[in-house]
Amino acid sequence: MARVVVAVMPKPEILDPQGKAVMGALPRLGFAGVSDVRQGKRFELEFEGEVTDAVLDEVRQMAETLLSNPVIENYTVTVESAEVRA
Amino acid sequence: MARVVVAVMPKPEILDPQGKAVMGALPRLGFAGVSDVRQGKRFELEFEGEVTDAVLDEVRQMAETLLSNPVIENYTVTVESAEVRA
Repeated sequence: MARVVVAVMPKPEILDPQGKAVMGALPRLGFAGVSDVRQGKRFELEFEGEVTDAVLDEVRQMAETLLSNPVIENYTVTVESAEVRA
Repeated sequence: MARVVVAVMPKPEILDPQGKAVMGALPRLGFAGVSDVRQGKRFELEFEGEVTDAVLDEVRQMAETLLSNPVIENYTVTVESAEVRA
């Protein structure tokens, strides 16, 4: 069992109204010191087998075609818990 | 400049319709091998100064009061790019 995480964030040049809303709420709640907030999505994909390079390539295709909108979003793919083989 | 990431995911016992929708779409798009998908949120908070333990405590408070709903969601706080001091 292995978990691959796809993080999808709005591109830097794209407005992020959700992040701005959080940014506006922080001082009202008494929090200071944050200079910027961006909000994106996180997908946790579980795989039964081992996460090979072929699996990661497939995850990148999922990220590009289904999980993100490449026009306005960037994504990163990371393996969170790789299967340990004895 | 340092970045702290707050990842907010639905608790395991909570239904996740967005994740289920992704899970249902994957085979239709020709992707196989994924046994489960969960969808959550990712917040990137930028700080001007150093990320001290006090800052991380404050981020945990933000996560509990504003960024997540502790009844149905779990969160994790990670420092992504700590400021390097010469």
